Amino acid sequence: MKVTLSQKFIAELFGTFVLVLMGCGSAVLAGTHVGFLGIAFAFGLSVLAMAYAIGHISGCHINPAITISMLATGKISGKETVVYIIAQIIGAIAGAGILYLIAQGKGDYSLAANGLGQNGVGEGSPDKYALGSGMIAEIVFTAIFLLVIHGSTSKNAGTGSFAGIAIGLSLTLIHIVGIPVTGVSVNPARSIGPALFVGGEALSSLWVFIVGPIVGGLIGGGIWKLMDRE
Amino acid sequence: MKVTLSQKFIAELFGTFVLVLMGCGSAVLAGTHVGFLGIAFAFGLSVLAMAYAIGHISGCHINPAITISMLATGKISGKETVVYIIAQIIGAIAGAGILYLIAQGKGDYSLAANGLGQNGVGEGSPDKYALGSGMIAEIVFTAIFLLVIHGSTSKNAGTGSFAGIAIGLSLTLIHIVGIPVTGVSVNPARSIGPALFVGGEALSSLWVFIVGPIVGGLIGGGIWKLMDRE
Amino acid sequence: MKVTLSQKFIAELFGTFVLVLMGCGSAVLAGTHVGFLGIAFAFGLSVLAMAYAIGHISGCHINPAITISMLATGKISGKETVVYIIAQIIGAIAGAGILYLIAQGKGDYSLAANGLGQNGVGEGSPDKYALGSGMIAEIVFTAIFLLVIHGSTSKNAGTGSFAGIAIGLSLTLIHIVGIPVTGVSVNPARSIGPALFVGGEALSSLWVFIVGPIVGGLIGGGIWKLMDRE
Amino acid sequence: MKVTLSQKFIAELFGTFVLVLMGCGSAVLAGTHVGFLGIAFAFGLSVLAMAYAIGHISGCHINPAITISMLATGKISGKETVVYIIAQIIGAIAGAGILYLIAQGKGDYSLAANGLGQNGVGEGSPDKYALGSGMIAEIVFTAIFLLVIHGSTSKNAGTGSFAGIAIGLSLTLIHIVGIPVTGVSVNPARSIGPALFVGGEALSSLWVFIVGPIVGGLIGGGIWKLMDRE
Repeated sequence: MKVTLSQKFIAELFGTFVLVLMGCGSAVLAGTHVGFLGIAFAFGLSVLAMAYAIGHISGCHINPAITISMLATGKISGKETVVYIIAQIIGAIAGAGILYLIAQGKGDYSLAANGLGQNGVGEGSPDKYALGSGMIAEIVFTAIFLLVIHGSTSKNAGTGSFAGIAIGLSLTLIHIVGIPVTGVSVNPARSIGPALFVGGEALSSLWVFIVGPIVGGLIGGGIWKLMDRE
Repeated sequence: MKVTLSQKFIAELFGTFVLVLMGCGSAVLAGTHVGFLGIAFAFGLSVLAMAYAIGHISGCHINPAITISMLATGKISGKETVVYIIAQIIGAIAGAGILYLIAQGKGDYSLAANGLGQNGVGEGSPDKYALGSGMIAEIVFTAIFLLVIHGSTSKNAGTGSFAGIAIGLSLTLIHIVGIPVTGVSVNPARSIGPALFVGGEALSSLWVFIVGPIVGGLIGGGIWKLMDRE
Repeated sequence: MKVTLSQKFIAELFGTFVLVLMGCGSAVLAGTHVGFLGIAFAFGLSVLAMAYAIGHISGCHINPAITISMLATGKISGKETVVYIIAQIIGAIAGAGILYLIAQGKGDYSLAANGLGQNGVGEGSPDKYALGSGMIAEIVFTAIFLLVIHGSTSKNAGTGSFAGIAIGLSLTLIHIVGIPVTGVSVNPARSIGPALFVGGEALSSLWVFIVGPIVGGLIGGGIWKLMDRE
Repeated sequence: MKVTLSQKFIAELFGTFVLVLMGCGSAVLAGTHVGFLGIAFAFGLSVLAMAYAIGHISGCHINPAITISMLATGKISGKETVVYIIAQIIGAIAGAGILYLIAQGKGDYSLAANGLGQNGVGEGSPDKYALGSGMIAEIVFTAIFLLVIHGSTSKNAGTGSFAGIAIGLSLTLIHIVGIPVTGVSVNPARSIGPALFVGGEALSSLWVFIVGPIVGGLIGGGIWKLMDRE
């Protein structure tokens, strides 16, 4: 199948829409019922499901930190990078918007920063971690995430379609460990979407969740290049 | 193997029977022990298990919203659609019936609408969401579900038997997020079965869980067609 | 590879040993920490792990109800059936014995029937279900389990090694739903092992967990034959 | 692809780094939120993710007990064994170090032995098991772990890339059952890393988590050889 760039645009937009709506949605709508473990599975299973749904169309990045790491390792063009990131940000905003719509039906709902699953250094950090820990965590977690992504999709791995399981469940793993620290971003789009609706501190700390994941993603790609040459 | 239509009928009947008995059963018999996360895994693993058990016979729809979306995308005939939906509804009623039988053995059992895992706008909504939110949720969740189904089984995806994992776990994902809203239907048969035993509000709100999933399933199929042509 | 009957004997013995030690062990040693959902995953993941560890040697039955259903569907000889069941019962007793040994190290440990994860109609039923419900549950659950086993390993399915995931996680599903009813047997060997150490009511109700699973397994095999002919 | 020994060194180092940082990190940073079940998934998913990320480079041992069992079954050379174990210990120390760094950001953080997920016979055993039970548990659990590893990667199994799922989830299984006993090591490197930072009893009981897993790993390899000859 010949996939056009606009089809990839649609895939990345809807994929990121699903990730934000369902990942953040699990925290906003069901967090008190399913706990952090349930939220961790929601984020991971969103990526796992989308990997098999749209992986053959766009590669299922649905995350600017992944797209930029793919650019740095020469797997995607500059033009595609721009298109992908625009689609991801639009999808994330749409996902946060629909979540806002559904949550309105809940009587006692208040639109707190955490309410939209926002990750901020202040309210977004359940266990109140300081900036330094939060930044280290985002960088290290994203580096691990990209190590799994580059490794499991490597031509040398020969593990084919298993990558979707490994990548999705590695995001579950990262959320199990990291939700208390920053709520876990490892994905600038996932942070931008809710922040635009919440504003305030969510917006002022947003730079951490853009810089951290991008830096971490580049480090992860670099470590992978040290040991695996396609 | 040549599969006859009556074999497909049996497969869809038993598959839907298992989904309703085990999915709703997890809520009725074990909900207080395993929480919403456990119920979410029960629904998803029911579909995952059935996908590998009967997928090669009927395609394992076990859900009229899926069958109708398959009809709309030209993957199944009108005649098969009718046979499938009849089988699904019979299976769902049988599943709810057996569950009723087992639950009778429990001393303090009361046949409340929620008791059979029923999803209603009133009692079936744990966090008391209004009609609007419930309808939006059912439409959006089913659209996502069908996006995963069409995408992961697409000939272009080339992911073969992985689809059963992706589809099953995407239903777990949808339940993690959506149980507090409507109890999650995304499947008219799953709602019809328990409603017939519970009656009252469960029956009067049943239309939401027939219309919502069907509309959502058509939207999901449409979105998939935008980006993936077989 | 040519596998000898004595190698199959060893595989079935160790496989059942692991299932009983780890499944029942999760209840005895960790039940208060991980809850019924954790126990459900322990039983299912024991089977999943063993399926890939010894599946190529003995087929990984590790359950007399499966072996008898395989005999009834003509997939295994009478001689092998006897050898398999002897190995399974020895393995189950050994698993319960090692669990007894480890649990001794726990200060406040008392060897109650439930303490070894025993499933009895009385103490073994967390929510105190009566005999009728318990028997129905064991029959229906085992029928579903065998439907998944026969279906996912069918030559017509063509799903190859995915069967181990489907079968293991279907056992998790059955435990999520059924632990409150009988503690879930669906496997006579798993019930015999602990019962021998616990005695009393565990022994007097043991027949339920031998008859129920065997009957259910035969029904499951029969339903499968209705729709799938190899 | 020709993989050099130094590439394997890097892979084993980073793999063990991720296992210790994320596995122990789930206990230290998120244990009160996700419970023992969440910690069990974190350890298992770390191995699952790394199996697909670096399996094609080094085989993803990230555990000296595995490497020694591989040496004993003739699957790896003595020279590689030494290089692997050195890499694993360095990676584990680095993982514990980064975890220490992130945890510093937590206001009420105290560096207790358990705080770093340390497994000791005293404080590291949540339910206060004595030395005998702890040693039996570590030996038996590691034997089961290696049975899964040797079996699922056997050429006779023909299950290819499924091994990563079976092995990862079997580690989850072992943690579900064993965390209350010793915190679960089954991996000397995973115990050495945190012990060096914690000192005291963690160091004095460290021999248990070196001897137990190595003995268990050799037993597991021996049992596998009884039934499966490549």
